[in-house]
This record gives sequence, structure tokens and C-alpha cells, in this order.
Amino acid sequence: MGSAIAANLVRAGHTVRVWNRSAEAGRELERLGAKLAGAPAETARAEVLFSMLADDDATRSVLLGGGVLDAASRGLIHANLATVSVAFARELAQLEGARGIDYVAAPVFGRPEAAQAAKLNVVTAGDAAAIARLKPLFAAFAERVWPISGAAERANVVKLAGNFMIASALETMGEAAALVQAHGIGAGEFLEVLTSTLFAAPVYQNYGRLIAAKRYEPAGFKLALGLKDVRLVLEAGGDVHVPLPFASVLRDHFLEALAAGRADQDWAALAAIAAAHGPPQPRDP
Amino acid sequence: MGSAIAANLVRAGHTVRVWNRSAEAGRELERLGAKLAGAPAETARAEVLFSMLADDDATRSVLLGGGVLDAASRGLIHANLATVSVAFARELAQLEGARGIDYVAAPVFGRPEAAQAAKLNVVTAGDAAAIARLKPLFAAFAERVWPISGAAERANVVKLAGNFMIASALETMGEAAALVQAHGIGAGEFLEVLTSTLFAAPVYQNYGRLIAAKRYEPAGFKLALGLKDVRLVLEAGGDVHVPLPFASVLRDHFLEALAAGRADQDWAALAAIAAAHGPPQPRDP
Amino acid sequence: MGSAIAANLVRAGHTVRVWNRSAEAGRELERLGAKLAGAPAETARAEVLFSMLADDDATRSVLLGGGVLDAASRGLIHANLATVSVAFARELAQLEGARGIDYVAAPVFGRPEAAQAAKLNVVTAGDAAAIARLKPLFAAFAERVWPISGAAERANVVKLAGNFMIASALETMGEAAALVQAHGIGAGEFLEVLTSTLFAAPVYQNYGRLIAAKRYEPAGFKLALGLKDVRLVLEAGGDVHVPLPFASVLRDHFLEALAAGRADQDWAALAAIAAAHGPPQPRDP
Amino acid sequence: MGSAIAANLVRAGHTVRVWNRSAEAGRELERLGAKLAGAPAETARAEVLFSMLADDDATRSVLLGGGVLDAASRGLIHANLATVSVAFARELAQLEGARGIDYVAAPVFGRPEAAQAAKLNVVTAGDAAAIARLKPLFAAFAERVWPISGAAERANVVKLAGNFMIASALETMGEAAALVQAHGIGAGEFLEVLTSTLFAAPVYQNYGRLIAAKRYEPAGFKLALGLKDVRLVLEAGGDVHVPLPFASVLRDHFLEALAAGRADQDWAALAAIAAAHGPPQPRDP
Repeated sequence: MGSAIAANLVRAGHTVRVWNRSAEAGRELERLGAKLAGAPAETARAEVLFSMLADDDATRSVLLGGGVLDAASRGLIHANLATVSVAFARELAQLEGARGIDYVAAPVFGRPEAAQAAKLNVVTAGDAAAIARLKPLFAAFAERVWPISGAAERANVVKLAGNFMIASALETMGEAAALVQAHGIGAGEFLEVLTSTLFAAPVYQNYGRLIAAKRYEPAGFKLALGLKDVRLVLEAGGDVHVPLPFASVLRDHFLEALAAGRADQDWAALAAIAAAHGPPQPRDP
Repeated sequence: MGSAIAANLVRAGHTVRVWNRSAEAGRELERLGAKLAGAPAETARAEVLFSMLADDDATRSVLLGGGVLDAASRGLIHANLATVSVAFARELAQLEGARGIDYVAAPVFGRPEAAQAAKLNVVTAGDAAAIARLKPLFAAFAERVWPISGAAERANVVKLAGNFMIASALETMGEAAALVQAHGIGAGEFLEVLTSTLFAAPVYQNYGRLIAAKRYEPAGFKLALGLKDVRLVLEAGGDVHVPLPFASVLRDHFLEALAAGRADQDWAALAAIAAAHGPPQPRDP
Repeated sequence: MGSAIAANLVRAGHTVRVWNRSAEAGRELERLGAKLAGAPAETARAEVLFSMLADDDATRSVLLGGGVLDAASRGLIHANLATVSVAFARELAQLEGARGIDYVAAPVFGRPEAAQAAKLNVVTAGDAAAIARLKPLFAAFAERVWPISGAAERANVVKLAGNFMIASALETMGEAAALVQAHGIGAGEFLEVLTSTLFAAPVYQNYGRLIAAKRYEPAGFKLALGLKDVRLVLEAGGDVHVPLPFASVLRDHFLEALAAGRADQDWAALAAIAAAHGPPQPRDP
Repeated sequence: MGSAIAANLVRAGHTVRVWNRSAEAGRELERLGAKLAGAPAETARAEVLFSMLADDDATRSVLLGGGVLDAASRGLIHANLATVSVAFARELAQLEGARGIDYVAAPVFGRPEAAQAAKLNVVTAGDAAAIARLKPLFAAFAERVWPISGAAERANVVKLAGNFMIASALETMGEAAALVQAHGIGAGEFLEVLTSTLFAAPVYQNYGRLIAAKRYEPAGFKLALGLKDVRLVLEAGGDVHVPLPFASVLRDHFLEALAAGRADQDWAALAAIAAAHGPPQPRDP
């Protein structure tokens, strides 16, 4: 994901210095014209720093542990594209603000293919002037930018709430498919009706196909990461005393999926858990 | 709903004899050119009988109690457009089959406006020849017909599973809205992002607007009817031993909404229950 | 259950005329001194009629279908010991009241062994004078009688709420056992601590032993009957708009147990479902 | 809680040096004969160190931040009586083991009154020899000690699973009470039947009284602490991939209770949430 974004920035003519845990991804970007940073801190001597790390811990260890913030150029804008927790986004914004860095939360919606095709949707929050300056850069990899007013971490709330909506759609289709199949109706036959009409949206159409075909590998987005995000959603709810009963069901089913050895499958495999709770399924017609 | 369908059949040039509980609805159709039946049984002396009654009980009392089946013309096709239980659909198909009537289950997706605009989606199951003969009639009020293979009641399973998906989408948006609002983000601001991108589907766009505006009156589809349908969904699951945890959460929240006096609001008011479980909400920006 | 109660009534010196679906059970009671009724209606020509039938349908078919009510002696007291729905209890009380029969709801807590040992707990509601007259009869098979004030069906509400509490205790122990076992602790070792201290009550001790030993056969109370009762609980809640989220979880797990072929196991097998949702279990130490 | 335990150790004739955040609690113990430690680290120059701190963070800050471990006497046994997370117990046992300290997890069941009356139940795990040496000390404040075999953190799993069982009993009684009350039956009348028979255990009897009387203040155990423990339960389940649907419902309801301003009420106020989901309640008879 990060590589696809960096490649698009290079292609758009920007000077890009990259650092990646895996050296190979770096070399490929170098071939495209990017410069390689020998250490994370070198990436902060720039006008803008984009980061896209796996989770809170990875972000913390690279940015804080790797001395990135201490090396920052005066007036650096840091756009964090990753899905991190709301609490950590708030903490980072404060830490960076204290050092004169403009922290912009800029989590993205879209699969790796969308990143390559420059069709991501970026949700942003933070300093308005900084976001304005980022606009031409976002244009290199995003279809559209969705600014949210207020503190930076609000963009993370939106991203997490969106991922919750996707996971809920997966569970919904999984339960509905289990129901119709137990009545002898093919999941594909059923989902075709709904995803051509009231639910004619990318999430339902794309995942509906995977669920109907029970095709959970290779993973576009791993189930274990889905659980991570649902945990962040529950945490974001817990922080402000908002119960989220659907998210609680999702957490339980993601855990069951992990217990069943499905961690590396696509998170659409949530549907396999709904099916496993019912009777042995008749074959699709 | 039934009136709008009948009106479209009249307009399409068919000879229509109507019976309605409310005399007024009948008179309006008469003005359009329909004939009025003095009793339900008269409607069965025809090639095709369409019925659209509120629920299992109403259907049973009119069709069976009203002597409709006994009065049926030889070779009558009965297309039941209503959302009835799977078990009752099965029973009706058997009862009518034994009398030589072709029972076609033909529940519809769409609001009353869609019925008027001849844009309903009809899901059908039953005898294939009968469904073929109904095709030109469906064309008078439907955008598209979705045939499901197998026994008639399967169309009802599809209809109920579809309504379950809508109700799940309502709950999902309600919980997500409660989450973002407690973080100071407007529900409309949030839903705009999602319903313009991954969730760009009618269900999310139309209901998303109602939820963001907290506009639950007048009802397009009453919350009390939503509970009725969720009960039918749970029953359809129970019959074949399929647990539906999301439907269970929905049932609990619909009951809470009824306890809170929201029976006659639109079922989008499910979102008000999710909000009530969290902290007092800050005003939308 | 009914046989054990009848036997105790005979032993206490009462004149008992019995009717049972299974002729054999009747013959055994005859040997003890009971008279056999040739048809259900004969049992109603008495001062008191006790009934203990499987469910609403069985009760309806025997009492109403079998003409029992029509044959009733003047001033008959009918004590219904079965676990029926709240709505049906209300209906029966009205039907019988209209015929001059005193309907007393008298559902019992206790396993068949308790019935034999005259240690049942009887919950009663209905006409106070009728309940007072039943007292010496209850004494033949009950340890204690718990009168509930108000309409007859309230005793059924209490019985169902009690069964809900038992089922919740089963699920609670099942989840707790799954948790500790995944951490390498024996379920028996764990439950011993709790059921000797804060949870030193019959329900936890008796079922805790079954759960720790994973001994679900033979059934003291079948899982399929547990599901029936949870459905009645949910119905009793639905009638008055009371959501019962724990009961919803129970329903889902009972259905899953049925789908897994456990209908005839003891309802303590609910714990096997909780265990199946987690990782493969290490053996108990 | 800690004070009551320390007082009992003093009374039993042991030499006790105490440290407490609140100076006042310390002075009271001094009057009984305890010595006051000027800093936490002084308490570790002893044969045995008992700690009873609010949560993981408080324990971490006092024990690790306060230099307690570094000051430990050779051969120190540390008995941690607090309810901490399973992960933190594991971490502490490793940290202390590396320093030659014997870490014994010894969480307790019982309210402050039980601590004063020397009637606590202590669950222990860790080094068997260390636990044996602690036996006479436990005798000063415990009714009984329940040794769990294996690693220290297993005692914490048992403690958390036990607290989960208590919280589930609260929710169960809350839902059952809401159900019966909506049918016109007093919660006290209902709970009297159950807690005198199948549920004749301290948890049900004591909390049943609070729930029937809606008496949630003063708190014996605060609702906010109940939520903390349910979170630890869910975490303990998540670590080993065990879904706990009842705990998920509990978490949602605890959050709702916090949103409703009930953080400082007794956790029995969970029943008020169940009641609030149903219709306005008729008064108890």
C-alpha cells in the first residue's frame, strides 16, 4: 500500500525519499526514481512526511523509537495515512505539535489496487493550512479527499467507523447467506438480487462475490487485521462510553475465526463463521 | 402499496376487479377504471389474483376466512405480493395446489413511491409456467423480476433476508453515527463520506439522510412493521436451525424502540436507540 | 414427571384417575392404586384436575380437542403444572373461567427425581380460594408452594423467568469454562472454587459437575426443550416490549446446538457450543 | 480492602510495615501496631510483600516506578492480591523471577466486610513452596485458600472468570426482573422464589436484594470497576481466541451505565439498564 502511494508520488514528479522495513520494496521504488533513506529519520528532513505503518506499535517504534520526530525539518507536515487508534492519533498530534510539526491524520479507504490506480479516498483532519498544502500531493494517489473539521484524530474516528460499516456488511451478508442456503437457495442467486438493487454498492458487490464463491484466499485484507480494527472501533467507543453491539458481535466472530485458523484469510471469511453456526450446508445449485 | 399496483395494472389496460378493506381506496381505483368487488371471493373468479395483505393473519382471514380459495376459477394463478412468513407461504402453496390454483410467491422490494413509478423489484418463486404468464402483468408495476428457483416460499426467504439486510444497515449506520457524534463529528458529515464511496447504494443514501437529520416522521415503513419482519426472519432461521446474531440484536433494539413509543416512526429510528445508549449528544456542527 | 406426581398423590391417599398418552405409564400407576381414565374427558369429572402436558400444542389438543373442559364437573379446579406460554395461560384462564372452572397456574421447578422425592417447588397464581384448597394436594409432591399475586399467567412468567436464569447460568459457566481451559486450567478445578463459595447453589453445583465432566447424556432436561422455553421467554418479553439480550444469545446458541445434532443431549451441552467457538481445547489436567 | 487485610495481619501478631497512597489509612494501621514505610521500596525489605493496588497502571507505577523490586530482600515472596490483567501478571512474574523474587498471584473474592471478618477466599498460583510459606499469613484474613496449579497468572484467570460470573448473574437478574415487572410482578416477589431455591447462593441473595430494592448506593463495588474487570475478561479471552458473547453484552451495558452517569453506583445498577430498555415500569406491589 505504502509502495503504491510512493510510486504514484514519484510518477507525479515529486522528489521522494523512501524508507521501508523491507529493502526490496525500497529498491523497486528506487528504480522508479525515488531516493532511498538509510534510516527512518532521514525521511523527516523534508517538506512533507507521509507515513503508512502497520499499527500503533509499529508507528510508535519507527517514528518515536527511530528518532524521526527529532530529526524533523522546521515546518514539516506529517501526513499519517495509517489506520491507528484514536488515542494514539491524539497523542501523536500533541507530541508533534510541541515540536512545531503539523500533524495531519489522513487515513485512506481503498485496497492496494485502488492505491495503484490513484483511486483512494483520503479522509483528512488537522491544520487546515497544512491540509491545503497537501492537496496536490494527495492528487497523485487519491480520487477524492474528504476533509473532516476539528482535531486530527477525528479522521481516524471516521476511518474506524467506516471499517466497522464494512465489517458489519460482511457479517450481514454472511448471516443472510447462511439463512437462504439452509432454505436451499444459492448464496450467489440471493446476493445477485440485493447487490443489483438496494445494495448496489462496491462493498456489497465485491465482497458479495467472495462470499457467494466462498473464496477467502488470497486475502485482500487479512482477517487478523480486521480484528485489530474492530478492537480499535470498540476502544474508540469505550473511550466516549458508546456501546456498539454489532461491533461486539463482530469481535466475537473474528476471534472465533482466528481460533479456527483463518487469521490469514480475507476478512470476508467472517461469512464462514456464520455458516458454521448453522446446519451442514446443502450445495449451491 | 396495493392501490398503487392496482392502479398501474388498470393503466396498463388490464381488466381489474379490486377489493380493499377501506372502501375509499376502492372508489379511487374505480374512478381509474377498476371494477369493485363486493366481497373478496369475487376477486378469485379471474385468470390471475394478486393479493397484498398486511401479514399472515390478515391474509389467512381474507383468503381462507373470506372463501376466496373456494371461489377460485379453474386454473387461477394467485400471486401473493405480501411479506408473509416462510411457513405460511409453504402452507398456502399446498392448500392452493390441492385446489388446482397455481400459487406464486411474489414479494416486492420498494417503497410506495416506487410502486407508483412502476419501479418495484419483484422476487418470484413457484410454478415456472405461471410466472411466465405473469410477466406482462409484473411489467405494469415492476422495474425488474427476479425469479428464484424452487418452491414458492423461497421467494419469501429472499424477501425476508433482504429486509434483514436493510435493518442491519440501519443499525450499522445508527451505531456508527453514535460513535462519530460522541467524538464531535456530525453524523451527516460522516455518512456523506461513506455513502458517496464504498456505500454508494440507495439503502445507505436514503436512510443515511434520515438518520443524519434525525427525521423519523412521517414513516415510509413503520418501525412496528420492521419488528414484525425481523421476527419472521428469526423464525425463518429458527425453522432451519440457523442462528442470526445480528437479527437478535435488531429484535432487542426494535423492542426497545417500541417500549420508547416509537412504533409509528420510520424504522430508521433504530438509530435513535443506538444514540440513546451513549452519552448525551453534542449538537451537529 | 406427571407420573411421579400422580404416584405421590396416590400414596398420599387421594383418589386419582389418570390419563396418559402412553398406556404403560398408566398401568404402572394403576398398580399403585390409581384408576385409569379411558379418555381425557373422564379426568375432568372430579374436584381437581392436574395436567402436565408437553407444551401449548399438546395441552390445547388434549384439553380443548379432547373435550376435557366441556366434561368438567361443576366447581372443578384445574391446576396446570406444565410450562406453557404466558399468552396460552391467559387464554386458558379465560376459557375455563367462562365455563365456571377455576384455573390455577402451577408450574413446577425440579427434575423428575425431585418429583419422586416430593421436593418440587410449585409456583402458583390464580384464584386464592382455589389455591388454598389445593394446598394439601401440593403437599403430596412439593417441598414448598410459592404463591404469586394476581392473574394466573403470572406464575408462568415466574417459571419462564426462572428457566431463563438457569439457562443463563449454563451459558455463563460454559463461557467461563472455555476461557479458563484455553489458559490451561481445568474446568472442574475452576468451577470447584466458585461453586463452593459465591455460587454455592444447586443450579451451579449440579450443572457445574456436568459441564466440567462434559457429560451431556443422558439428558435430565433435553436441549430441544431448553430452546422451547427460551423461545417462550423471548415471546413473554416481546409481548410487553422487554428486550432480553442474554436470552437472545441463548436462543442463538441453542439453535447452533440443534444444528450440531445435540437436540437430545442435556441442555448443559450449551457449554459445548461456547467451547467450540474457541481454540481446540487442551486436555483437563 | 488492603487496610482491612493489613489490620488482620497485625492482629495476628505479624510484624507489618505498610505503605498507602492515603496517609490517613496508614495512620490508622499505625495505631493498631503497624510500622509506616516512608516509601514503597521500604516494604520490600521483608520476608513477604503483600500488594493490593487498584489496577495494572497503579501496580506498575508503584512497584516498578517506585523501585520496589530493586529494593527487594533476597528471597522475598511477593503476593499480589489485586485484580490485574492476565498479561500483566505474566510480565510481573517474569520480571520478579529474574530478580530472584517469588511472585505469587493471590487475588481475593470478597467484599471489604469479608476482609475485616477474615472471610476472604484467596485464589493462588505460582511457586508451590512460596504458597506453602504464605499459608499462615493467608489464615489471618482468609476463610479458605484455593490453589490453582501452574503459572502464577492462572490465579488471575480464575479471579477474572469469577468476576465475569458475578456480572453475568447481575445482568441475568436484571433482565429477569425487567421481564416480570413488565408483567406486573414485583422483582422482590420473583427473586425471593429463585434465591430461596435453585439460586440459593450468596451472589444471588445479596445482589438480588439490591436489585429488588433498586438500591445502588452506596456502592460495595463500583460500576466503573466492574467495567474495568469485564474489559480484562474480554482481553483474557482475546489473548487466547475465546469469544465470550455474554461478556460482550456486559461490556455494552456497563458502557451505557457509564454514559448514564452511574459510574459510582454499585455494579448491581446493571439491572437499571435492563429495566431502562423496557417500558416504563409499574410500581412494585
